[in-house]
This record gives sequence, structure tokens and C-alpha cells, in this order.
Amino acid sequence: MSLIEWAIGRRLANREHPERRLGAFEGVPAMGLDGVGSSAYGPEAALTILIPLGAAGLIYIGPIMAAIIALLAILYASYRQTIAAYPNNGGAYIVSRENLGRNTSLLAAAALMIDYVLNVAVGISAGVGALISAVPALHDYILPLCLGILALVTLMNLRGTLDAGRLFALPTYTFVLSFLVVLAIGTWNTLTSAGPPMPVIPPPVLPEATAPVSAWLLMHAFASGCTAMTGVEAVSNGMSAFKEPRLRYGRRTLTAICAILGLLLAGIAYLASNYRILAMHQEMPGYESVLSQLAHAVAGDGVLYYVAIGSLLCVLALSANTSFVDFPRLCRMVAEDGFLPRSFAIAGRRLVFSVGIFYLASTAALLLVLFGGITDRLIPLFAIGAFLTFTMSQVGMVVHWLKALRSAKDLRTKTPLRVHLLINALGAWATGSALIVIVAAKFSEGAWITLLVIPAVIVLLKTIRRYYDDLDAGLRDDGPINLARVEPPVVLVVTERWDKLTDKALGFALRLSADVVAVHVTALDGPEGKDERSIRDRWVRDVELPSRVAGIKPPRLMLLRSEYRLIYDPLLKLIKELETEFADRDIAVILPEVVKTTWWQWLMHTHRGRRLRTKLLRYGGSRLVVVSIPWYLDEPRIDEGIYHAKTG
Amino acid sequence: MSLIEWAIGRRLANREHPERRLGAFEGVPAMGLDGVGSSAYGPEAALTILIPLGAAGLIYIGPIMAAIIALLAILYASYRQTIAAYPNNGGAYIVSRENLGRNTSLLAAAALMIDYVLNVAVGISAGVGALISAVPALHDYILPLCLGILALVTLMNLRGTLDAGRLFALPTYTFVLSFLVVLAIGTWNTLTSAGPPMPVIPPPVLPEATAPVSAWLLMHAFASGCTAMTGVEAVSNGMSAFKEPRLRYGRRTLTAICAILGLLLAGIAYLASNYRILAMHQEMPGYESVLSQLAHAVAGDGVLYYVAIGSLLCVLALSANTSFVDFPRLCRMVAEDGFLPRSFAIAGRRLVFSVGIFYLASTAALLLVLFGGITDRLIPLFAIGAFLTFTMSQVGMVVHWLKALRSAKDLRTKTPLRVHLLINALGAWATGSALIVIVAAKFSEGAWITLLVIPAVIVLLKTIRRYYDDLDAGLRDDGPINLARVEPPVVLVVTERWDKLTDKALGFALRLSADVVAVHVTALDGPEGKDERSIRDRWVRDVELPSRVAGIKPPRLMLLRSEYRLIYDPLLKLIKELETEFADRDIAVILPEVVKTTWWQWLMHTHRGRRLRTKLLRYGGSRLVVVSIPWYLDEPRIDEGIYHAKTG
Repeated sequence: MSLIEWAIGRRLANREHPERRLGAFEGVPAMGLDGVGSSAYGPEAALTILIPLGAAGLIYIGPIMAAIIALLAILYASYRQTIAAYPNNGGAYIVSRENLGRNTSLLAAAALMIDYVLNVAVGISAGVGALISAVPALHDYILPLCLGILALVTLMNLRGTLDAGRLFALPTYTFVLSFLVVLAIGTWNTLTSAGPPMPVIPPPVLPEATAPVSAWLLMHAFASGCTAMTGVEAVSNGMSAFKEPRLRYGRRTLTAICAILGLLLAGIAYLASNYRILAMHQEMPGYESVLSQLAHAVAGDGVLYYVAIGSLLCVLALSANTSFVDFPRLCRMVAEDGFLPRSFAIAGRRLVFSVGIFYLASTAALLLVLFGGITDRLIPLFAIGAFLTFTMSQVGMVVHWLKALRSAKDLRTKTPLRVHLLINALGAWATGSALIVIVAAKFSEGAWITLLVIPAVIVLLKTIRRYYDDLDAGLRDDGPINLARVEPPVVLVVTERWDKLTDKALGFALRLSADVVAVHVTALDGPEGKDERSIRDRWVRDVELPSRVAGIKPPRLMLLRSEYRLIYDPLLKLIKELETEFADRDIAVILPEVVKTTWWQWLMHTHRGRRLRTKLLRYGGSRLVVVSIPWYLDEPRIDEGIYHAKTG
Repeated sequence: MSLIEWAIGRRLANREHPERRLGAFEGVPAMGLDGVGSSAYGPEAALTILIPLGAAGLIYIGPIMAAIIALLAILYASYRQTIAAYPNNGGAYIVSRENLGRNTSLLAAAALMIDYVLNVAVGISAGVGALISAVPALHDYILPLCLGILALVTLMNLRGTLDAGRLFALPTYTFVLSFLVVLAIGTWNTLTSAGPPMPVIPPPVLPEATAPVSAWLLMHAFASGCTAMTGVEAVSNGMSAFKEPRLRYGRRTLTAICAILGLLLAGIAYLASNYRILAMHQEMPGYESVLSQLAHAVAGDGVLYYVAIGSLLCVLALSANTSFVDFPRLCRMVAEDGFLPRSFAIAGRRLVFSVGIFYLASTAALLLVLFGGITDRLIPLFAIGAFLTFTMSQVGMVVHWLKALRSAKDLRTKTPLRVHLLINALGAWATGSALIVIVAAKFSEGAWITLLVIPAVIVLLKTIRRYYDDLDAGLRDDGPINLARVEPPVVLVVTERWDKLTDKALGFALRLSADVVAVHVTALDGPEGKDERSIRDRWVRDVELPSRVAGIKPPRLMLLRSEYRLIYDPLLKLIKELETEFADRDIAVILPEVVKTTWWQWLMHTHRGRRLRTKLLRYGGSRLVVVSIPWYLDEPRIDEGIYHAKTG
């Protein structure tokens, strides 16, 4: 208990919720690390595809990046509209649920979930990739490093989104500042030098061209580069995390993320082609990432390089945080609709949805272990889900504006709606086209796996919903309370011997019914059973005779032998017989139990009572009721159990 | 469930107990492996002490072994008497409990328990030592091998003593036969050769003498050699495992064990001095045990050597089995007297005391891990417990015969009693003297640890007994049944909404009392709670109005807000208030619960009900009663839960 408090902080009250929400300052680190960090692996992924072109590849990086930045601008404009229209979480799931129907929204949910899990794995392994680029000696520890970072991010998010946002603000803003400085210096050098700029530390010699340029290759590079855009949707999915006025803080955060990302992408493309930097294969010895080559070329081996690369490493590793903010909130909405277990919708100790966080962490850990912690193999799986949800969200918004247009009366309200429609339609067209390119380019590389997994997830979601629907249908009570007077139940009191437990239990039993049977199961300890005569003698003396004197039908004592030393075995048999004999009466089993309050008491008792209760409830049938009567060695102070009372 | 059945066999009925008992054929492997296997480490331990004497040490091995064999003969005679006098388990614990009093018997119990745990560790590590002597390549795997063998022995004993005895009969009788052949050949060669016999494979050259002979050294060697005798008491401690006529099978087993052990000890001492074989330090590279050197010297490297050493390895490794037979039976008796948790006295699935077996296995595993699986370091700890219990058992028998003599009338009955007395007194004198020598010789080597641990164990046993005594005193009910009519309880029904669960629970509640309050805890899922108006509206329509119409006091609905999302928090507070308000009434909390029957249902529900029940019983106080009302998605067939019905 106190270990948990130490790790993730004290339990928060519901009323503390408003103080736990984000402004834009925490919003950028909390939700934007994915978007901002994408600047590292987007260009790198595009350049990796261009490796076969050799030096000729550098000609094409400019136009490819220009296309990607244009797409980013379209996305920015359309998501600004989306969060305004759905300020309580305008993610693809909600937008398609409201506009495209239930099934489409499940497709969006499945794609988003997969995307978020992949984002955690890709983000962390990219971060560790950058670390190894700087410290090659760590090459053998890729997987442990990945899992360690995952554990850190998980723990911080269990403490709360605000805590994570505050802690991760330092590396985020350091990264942005230091790379803007690197890019500024590089641009200055390029503009002021005659011919190509002189690198301080020259990047590796460019490889020989091994393939001619082709439209397919360029499309492929574009598709890979598009991974740079994932994370832009994060703000729309996580709107509920912002404080009021929510829309203002959401817009500020979105603007900051897109502006930073656009600047970085443009700068990297410009400098890479001028400093003649291409990607290297990640498995190669001496591998160095594009950003590291670039920082080396511009800033040499000084403090700026280490600050830039150090903060880049942090940003990449922590870009998983975006998923940890959005995934649990998405799952919460899906769970509230009945498509995920209800526990996903419960706010945990720190007012975050802990079950979603645990689930995300364990699935990502599994992926990291399966893929050995290497990013490249995961990226093809990654982009499809992201662009699928982009497209669905945009299409959903198009439908949203069309509906609004239909109900709009005059031209003055129609004109802005038409502008909104145009922007989202442009977004839908752009992201849809990108999606087709990505699917075509990455299908054989593993993207087909995503296309298999998405339907499987949808089937799972629908199965869960069907379970809850069946449960609700079974539990639904359309009529009023059933006040039919029924006969009192037959009562069984489970007893070990004549003691205060049994005395107390019989007292309760006699209130319930006149038909009380005390059951004592013998031979539980083994074949060499104890003598059972004494319990019978005491029963006659202390129960039967006094009852008769008081004019009460005496509770009968029944000794049942258990051949298999299982207490529930003869009891269930007896209950079955009683149910047949008394077809119209319920059966109440009374279990007196000594309450254990310390760990060592658990070792001192046999736990038969607990196991018996479980078995009775599991197999007893709907005419059975189990009554637990506690007995305390020391009467507890009820206050001890009240959380609220303890913390004031 | 079926995995357990596959591993240890089907659950046995109490009535099958007679068929599960041992004859002498299974008795020797089941209980005698410790005694028989001692022939390997007893002489080895004595010879290890003699190493500093070099070749001169060989002169003394004969006399030392003769003393040990004489002690063995005395022990044999006295244990024959003990098992006749206490045929239902004549171990040191029972003998001293009956004759020397409670405290002395606890000393015996503590010493025996420690002895049994040490025997498992020593036996297994000696077996692995012998294996490494034969296959030095395995030297790096000492600990894993030890733990693997421990697991095997544990599993076999969980299946049952009979199963273990049958399985281990093959290696036991192979060992006895093959070593008798080796000893016979060696003796024949010695007797027929002129001068010392020619070894087939000569043993290592004897080390230089580094110390002069001293009485202390010889006593030390005797004390170490006495470990050869541990295991002789096993039959007396495990008498309850034999089939009827119990005394006959017990005596046969005891005789077989002592005869085999005596022959082996005599033969080994004779051949070691003639073939000039001394012990080697176990940590030395190229270490070879005395028996392996001896078998090599007599039989060379042929089939006989491998059969002999292979079966020796098995016997040593399996000598732990003796502890697994006796320790759980000892713990059972101690637990029945209230000095150990009651679960030690419960016969498990296979009619053996599984808790004792688990406890023994885990303690021995801990020891093996702590000591790295090397025997030598454990032996000093070992002998004291064994000889302490020998002595106590003998002294107890002396008292037993003295009592019998006092009540005996005529000379005809007195004479045999005097013979019995004499034999046990001799046994007590011999084992007591050996004990003193052992304590003196081994004190500094680690035996002091045993002398610290024994009192600690006694304190633990007494603490456990005190707990049970307090519990019994608290529970004892000296008077007859309390028939005082009390007011019906105030009933709380925990409800999530108006459904069949609540309907059923209210039906039961109204039977109990006219004062029924339904409690619905809100804000459990987090700060953004759902609208609670609908539950109130339905309550009025479907509960309050119909009740009023029927002339029943309507159950009230109470909404409680939980700031900390803990369902028990506001409930315990309410219960506390009610207990103050209604000082003379009990409070019954009714928990309707959906019964989960499959593993995936566990993932679909929140388990609040289960946790609530635990908290209520823990903190609710003695005026609280918890009623669990099951609700089934599919009505269970009660038969499924009845074990007896399933297996016929």
C-alpha cells in the first residue's frame, strides 16, 4: 500500500480533478512529443528509402519534404476545426461515431489502438537508436534500455498526465531550442559559403548508386517520410486532458506542435541536401542517425552537439508519452460504449485510467521483445493505422459539415460552413491519397499485418459488446419489485464445533427461518479422523435441550463425512438434495468465519471457509444465498477502513 | 486442475488409505535411503578428518569404524524396543512427550525438524558430489542439479509415500547388491594376495602428513563418522506409514536397514585401509569420493563400476526421501498438538501431508542455494540434531521402562522390563557420549548455528501454540445457545441500478427486516460521473410506489458519493453512523453478485463486489453480517461442483 503511494503518489480525490488538467505549457510535452519527435524519424525514413540512389537521392529530398510539409499544413487547418467542433475529445473514434456510424467508429478505434501501441514501441526504439548512435558501446543493451525507458514512462503516467507533462517539459523545450540553433547555424553557413558549406565533422561518404530513380521509389520515400506526421492528431484525441477554457489550450498546443514540426522538417531537408547527408542502415556497424550526422556537420563535437543529441534522445524515447496520454482516454470512451471491459473506464488512484496504461505498457513491451528493439521493422506497421485514422477523422468532419449545411438556414451561416467543409475535404483527399500510397508502398514490408490485425481487433471489440449486451438483457428488470411472499429459506449453518461462532451464526439463522440445520463435515483432515462424539453430546446439551425448553424447534446437527477431504463436496450434495426436497424454498448457507487481520494469521488458518464460499457461489445455483458472519479476535475500529477519514 | 492430476495423480479417497501403506519391500527405499546412503558419507567424513595424518591415518580408520558399528548395534537393539512400545509412531517427539514432558518434546521436535531439513540438503548435495566425481564436466552445474533432484523427490512424495518407495526400490536394491559384490571382490583379493592387494585403478597418492596424531583428532574423526548413523531413527518416526501388522513390517524394515548399513561400513573401512584410500577435499580439482576410489581400485573402469557408482549416486540423491517420509508425519503430530499451523495436519490429495512436503522442499532449496550445493559445509550442522534426538529418544525410553517397572507386580514381568531398560540405557549412554563428542568437535565448525536455531524454533512453536490457545479461549462458549430475541437487523442492499439482481436482493432483504436501505455509490468511475437521476426515477416507479400499494414500508434508496472512487469508503462510513444510531441492532449488508464461471469473465468485471466483501468483513465489526446473493448468466448444474459425483 505505502509502496504504491511512494511510487505514484497519494490517492487523489475526485474534487481535485480540475487542478490535474493541462495548459499548453504541459500540453506540448505531454501530447506533442510524438509529433515533435517525428522530425527525427520521418526524414530519416525517407532518406533510408533513397539510399539506393546514392548522391542522386539528395536532389529528391527537398521536393518530398515539401509535399509532406504541405500535407502537414492541411492537417493542421483541419484539426483546428475538428477540436472546435468536438471540444470534449474530437478523436477519429468520436468523429466517426457521430458522423459515419458505429462500425466505422470501431474501425477507427481499432486503427488508433494499434497505432498507439506501435507508437510506443517505435518511439522508444528510435530513442534508443539515437543513444546508440552517440554511444556505440551500448549496442548490446538495446532491449533492456527500451524496456527501462518504457517502465519510466509508464510510471510517470500512472502518477498522472500532469506529472508526466511537467517532468518532460525540460527535455522537450531543450530539444526544440538546441535544434533550432543547429538549423540556424547550418542555414547561415550554407547561405554565406561559396558553394556547399564545409562540415565541421564530415558525414560518411555517400554510397554508390545501385538503382535508377523511379516514380515508385519516390512515392515510397514519401510514404515513409509521412511517418513524420503521426502525432498531429494527438491533441484532438486528448482534448479532455486540458483545463478550461479547453479549446484555447487545445488550439495553442496544436499550433505549437505543428509549427515546431514544420520548421524542423524544412530545416532538416534543406541542410541534408546541402551538407550531402544520407541515411545509413540501422543494422550496419558505425551507424549514425541523420540528425546526428547533421549536428556533427554543423556543430562539430562540442557542447551544442551533446545537448542537441541528448535532448533528441530524450524526446524520441519519451515520444511514447503521447500514446500514454491518448490511449487510456480512447479506451475509456470505447469502454463506456461497452466495447472494452469496464475497468478501462475507471479513473485510478491518480485520476488517470490506469488499466489502459497497464495494457498499453504490456503490449508495447511484448512488441519490443518480439522485434528485439529495432525500429525499422516496426515502422511499416505503423504508418497505416495513423493515416487510416487521419482519413476517417477528415471524412467524418466532411459529413459533419454537410449535415450542418443541410440544417443551416441562411447564406450568412452557410458560408463559413462551406469553408470548413472545403478545408476538411482537402484534408480527407490529401490523407486518403497518402494512405493509398502508403498501403501500396509498404504492403509487402509488413503493412499487411496491420490489415489483418485491425479486423481481428474489431471482432474482439464486438464480442466484448455482445457479452455486455447479453449480460444487460439477462439482468434487465422491466417490471416493478417482486413482493410475492415466499416461505422462509432452509438454513444450513456450517460448524466446526460448539463455540461462539456457531452460537452467533445460529442466532442469525433462527431469525431467518425455523428450519435450521447445522452441518459438521467430518474426515476433512484425513482418514484418521478425530472422535466426533463430543460435538454431538454438546449439541444435545447446549442447543437442543435449551431450544426445546424455550419452545423453539431445535436446530438439528448433521454430520457429513467427506471421503475426499473437500468441505464443499458433501455440502453441495446436501444442498442438491434439499433443493429437490423443498422445491419452493431458498437455501441459505451461513458461514461463520474468524477474520484475519495480519499476514501471519493467513498462515495459521486453513482457508476452507473462503474456498467453500467460492464453491458454493459458483455451483450452488440461484436458490442459494451465502451469509458470512465475521468473528474478530480484536474488535476492529471501523475508522481504520475508511480512507477518507484517514487523510482528512 | 488436470495439470495437478497429471503430475501427482488423481485425488484419493479416505477409504483408500489402507492400500496406500508400505510393506518392508517399499519401506527400505522409502525410509532407509538415508541410513543406507550414510555409508557413503560417514566413512568419507571420518577419512576427511584424517587427511592431515597422511598415510598414518589409515591405521585409525578400522578402530573408528568399529566403534561406530558398535554404536549402530546398540541403536538397532534399542529402536527395536521403541517401535514395539510405540507402534503408532515412536519418534523422539512422541517418546519424549509421553515420558519427559512437553518442553522436552518440543526440543526433540525442533531438533528433528532441523535434522530432516539438513538431511535433504546433505543427501542431495552428496549425491551430486558423487555424480561430479564420475563426470567432472558437470562441475559447474552443482546447484541446478541439486535443485532438479529436490524437485523430483518432492514430486514423487506428493504422489505418495508408496509411489516414492516403489519407484526408488530399483536404485536402492541395485546399490546394495552392486556394492556388496564390490566389497566381496575386494575382500577376496585382499585375503588372497600376498601383501596389500593390487588396485585395478590405483587411488591417488596419499598426501604428506601435516599434523601428528592426537586424541582430539581421532575423536573428531569419530564424531564426523557418526553421521553414518543418521537415518536409523527413521523407521521409528514413520511407523504410521506401514500396513498391518505394523510392528512386523516396521521391524523387518529396521533390521534390513541396519544390517545393510553395518555390512557396508565394515567392508568400506576394511578395504580403505588395505587399498590405502583416503578422502580428498571436495573443493579440490580432480576430486574423487572414497567410494568411487574404492570401486575403481577393486573393479576398474568396467560395467560394475558404473552400475555401483550410478546406483550410489541415485541412493545418495534420493536419501532425502527419508526426510520426505518422516518430516510431514512429524509435523502432523506437532500440528495436532497445536504447535504448528493446522494445515500441517491435513492429508492432501494423495493422503500425504502436502503442506509439510512443500515446507520441507522450500526450506531445503533455500539451504542448498545459500550453501551453493556443497555438502561439507552442511555436515557440521547436521550431526548434532540427529544425536540429540537419538539421546532424547533413548532417555525417554529409559523413563518409559522405569514407569513400567514401578507398576509391574511380579518378577516374571519385571525381568524382561529390566532387559529393555538396560538396552535403552546403554543406547542413551552411547548416543549421549557421542553427542558430547560431536558438540565438542564440531562446535567451532558451525554446529553452534544448530544450537542457536533450536531454541528459536522452540520459541516459534510455543508462539504458535499460544495463538491457538488465545483463539480457543476467545471462541470457547461455555454456556448454552443464546436464544434472546433481538430486533431484526437494519439491512443495506448494495445496488448499481434497478435490475434483477437488486430485485432478488430486495426480496431477501424484506424477509430479514422492515428497515431496508438500498445504497448506490456514485462517482466510482471518476470525477466525470454519469447522470444518476434515472436510477432515482425508476426507484420511485418500480420500488416505492408498488411497496406502498402493497402496504409495505418501502425500501429507501440512498445515493452516496465516493470522493476517492472506493466503494467501501462511504459504505463503512454509513455503517458506522448506523451502528451509532441503532445501538442494539445488527447490520446486514446484502451484496448481489454476478457469478463468473470462465477466466475471461474475470477480465470483463470490476471485482468491486469481492473487494467490498473483504473490506466489510475486515473492518465492519461484529455487528455486521454480509449476505452474498449469486446471480447466474447460465444456471449452473450443481453436480459439476461435486467431486465425488464426477469420479464415481
